[in-house]
Amino acid sequence: MNQSTICAISTAAGTGGIAVIRVSGDDAIINASKIFVASDKKNLLDVKSNTIIFGKIKNSKNEIIDETLVSIFRTPHSYTGEDTVEISCHGSIYIQQEIQKLLLENGCRLARPGEFTQRAFLNGKMDLSQAEAVADLIASSSKVSHRVAMNQMRGSFSNELQQLRSQLLNFVSLIELELDFGEEQVEFADRTKLILLANDIKTIIAKLVNSFSLGNAIKNGIPVVIVGETNAGKSTLLNHLLNEEKALVSEIHGTTRDSIEDVININGISFRFIDTAGIRDTGDEIESLGIKRTFQKIDQASIVIWMIDTTHFNTEIEYIADKIVPRTKDKQLIIVFNKIDKISPEEQLILEEEFLPHVPAERIYLSAKYKQNTEKLERALLKAANLPDMQANDVVITNLRHYEALSKALESINRVEEGLKEGISGDFVAQDIRECMHYLGEITGEISTDEVLGNIFKNFCIGK
Amino acid sequence: MNQSTICAISTAAGTGGIAVIRVSGDDAIINASKIFVASDKKNLLDVKSNTIIFGKIKNSKNEIIDETLVSIFRTPHSYTGEDTVEISCHGSIYIQQEIQKLLLENGCRLARPGEFTQRAFLNGKMDLSQAEAVADLIASSSKVSHRVAMNQMRGSFSNELQQLRSQLLNFVSLIELELDFGEEQVEFADRTKLILLANDIKTIIAKLVNSFSLGNAIKNGIPVVIVGETNAGKSTLLNHLLNEEKALVSEIHGTTRDSIEDVININGISFRFIDTAGIRDTGDEIESLGIKRTFQKIDQASIVIWMIDTTHFNTEIEYIADKIVPRTKDKQLIIVFNKIDKISPEEQLILEEEFLPHVPAERIYLSAKYKQNTEKLERALLKAANLPDMQANDVVITNLRHYEALSKALESINRVEEGLKEGISGDFVAQDIRECMHYLGEITGEISTDEVLGNIFKNFCIGK
Repeated sequence: MNQSTICAISTAAGTGGIAVIRVSGDDAIINASKIFVASDKKNLLDVKSNTIIFGKIKNSKNEIIDETLVSIFRTPHSYTGEDTVEISCHGSIYIQQEIQKLLLENGCRLARPGEFTQRAFLNGKMDLSQAEAVADLIASSSKVSHRVAMNQMRGSFSNELQQLRSQLLNFVSLIELELDFGEEQVEFADRTKLILLANDIKTIIAKLVNSFSLGNAIKNGIPVVIVGETNAGKSTLLNHLLNEEKALVSEIHGTTRDSIEDVININGISFRFIDTAGIRDTGDEIESLGIKRTFQKIDQASIVIWMIDTTHFNTEIEYIADKIVPRTKDKQLIIVFNKIDKISPEEQLILEEEFLPHVPAERIYLSAKYKQNTEKLERALLKAANLPDMQANDVVITNLRHYEALSKALESINRVEEGLKEGISGDFVAQDIRECMHYLGEITGEISTDEVLGNIFKNFCIGK
Repeated sequence: MNQSTICAISTAAGTGGIAVIRVSGDDAIINASKIFVASDKKNLLDVKSNTIIFGKIKNSKNEIIDETLVSIFRTPHSYTGEDTVEISCHGSIYIQQEIQKLLLENGCRLARPGEFTQRAFLNGKMDLSQAEAVADLIASSSKVSHRVAMNQMRGSFSNELQQLRSQLLNFVSLIELELDFGEEQVEFADRTKLILLANDIKTIIAKLVNSFSLGNAIKNGIPVVIVGETNAGKSTLLNHLLNEEKALVSEIHGTTRDSIEDVININGISFRFIDTAGIRDTGDEIESLGIKRTFQKIDQASIVIWMIDTTHFNTEIEYIADKIVPRTKDKQLIIVFNKIDKISPEEQLILEEEFLPHVPAERIYLSAKYKQNTEKLERALLKAANLPDMQANDVVITNLRHYEALSKALESINRVEEGLKEGISGDFVAQDIRECMHYLGEITGEISTDEVLGNIFKNFCIGK
């Protein structure tokens, strides 16, 4: 393959103690050798794979840009599978940029986003679903999302697809063999057994398809909407739940998403809090605007928190009870009674007994301001998330592209099963099986187009 | 040395393609081996220095945290001089933190700021002035500041000090030999030659001391103050000069300084623009408050730009001419006539001939809005900076601590020269020479205290 040699700064943007610039391609070592002088005068071209040497980066005027470590990886023993050089330099932005400039002047071009990983895929170091997991892994900010991405990167999903594929291949061979002898009315394959086989495959694919709602919740956080009056204490509660984690989480999402939502990790599970404007008594306007939007947001959420200021009951509460609560029927509703530090135990008892007893909801009595009982809310959220126990190696789909391909594969295998039951001609059945295999192949990248690859890798960061 | 083993994330904070976690100390390799399983099952303890192996980081529950590269450096072939491990992991913040946590659980402690470099100094890998240059190198944002820091890190200043030291040692030996034979009235050393030697040394030290004003300008940028009315177009001009570089420069300074000033690089030289409030006609208040502060800022600057709106001459201009211009006598004054797009060539001619002809200043006629002639201002700034031509290997002092030590060394050697001229007793002369050597030794760290070291390294970033 006559691929151009690419380079990029691979560590996070900004000033650090050190930074790493990565070079990959046929000319990686020769290009790097043009700007690097080893302390022991060794030529980079003579350096063994997986070794590190110390030396100086120099420009064409023989000025020293930096003293660096240079790591050499020879094909196929590298991330991309190509010859690769990693330059570990002092982490000043000036130095990072100068070294990158020198590489560009000496035969490299700037890598496109995700191009190192794309090359790893093209060179057979990983399949497409594993390559996609690399980006998920880098973006993962909770224990569970990290684990799911790690499993996928390490190939557990790929293995499952591989098994499905070989089952389908076996399946289609049986049927096609029959077709070859079609004239003779031979039936090699026992139809009942074939139906069972189709059903088995269907069950596996359906399980993967169904895991997407869990996977999506894990990857993007479980959507939680908070409704309530403006002064119910929503932001105090959020700030408390966020704790010091906020900066961290925001930073991550700032790099992967356009807008920053409040994401809170509780026991390794991410909850994504969706803003709703507080509900105020402004007559008809509420009806027409605010509520419409609140309705939409409730529709997006899995969990609805209704926050009530226990010191201040008013018409909004009735309004919410009438209009909003009915919309939470298929959601998990948590009613949070805030500011309990300001009411007496007797008043709380009355609330517990008399407040909308017919509404099925978890009820939490807390004080956001004094951090009283907020851990109860955390437990209630975990309970409401209702995530199935995930084993360390469970395969969970987190990627919309995979979900869509699997859904189509499911339709195909459904048609196979029905076709067999209805006794339709073998060549139609074979076609549906091949279609099913096609969709699975799209996931691993056995079947892919430049356009598909372009769409996948454009969302990576540069340098990975 | 029974040093504890330290670890830190050494790459820039945030999410990147990859990140590097550094471990250094006697137990670096054994601690890393507790959390790392090599793909080829090799034990890290058996790996040769300067080699890289691939494998998995696992926690105590045997869960995989990441697939990483691990680089091994054995004492003394490492940055710190100690056994060192560098873990190159996927650049998610979650993974970086988990790996750091695992290292802390397995015998490492978190490195203090600059502790890796401090250990390099303590283990004799570099002297103190070189160690300080590492921080300067990382913070350097212009070609020239980078070059000065690089020279210092590579030891050109240390070499110069070393030569001075051996000259002084030779000097003091001659005198002390004389003292041993004091009773016999022997004079081994020719006093005239000794005076010449003292003078030579003085010249070298004085040159270093004097280089500090240049060094400081290079390191911190040449201070430029802009005075003028509020609507003279100052911020338009600044924004234009800043160009796309602003974000970059701000980012650097945000990490090394408390407040962000506008720093502009022109041909590799940094100019640091000091804000002054625009001058408005508010009567006595100007006199008492604004002007006092503007006076202070002019005193800090090397270059003063006086910006005039050519479409709008008024009393402020007279005011500035009377009160401010006289204070710029020892500075470089540049008068910028802005908005020349709005005046006729004839009007400009009149300005050129008649505007304060007695004031010695560079005069630039430009339009900040239409970027007309702004390159002339850049050239005028470079000329006004009046930096001596610096050769690639010139030693320039950029560090206040070095400046102070050199100033004291200069005083000592002055006393030596005078003492010799006045024919004072040899033991007094010897004492002054030793004092001079002491101050030079403070710079390289031959003489240092924990307090001095603490002060130096606390300003480093963690991980370097």
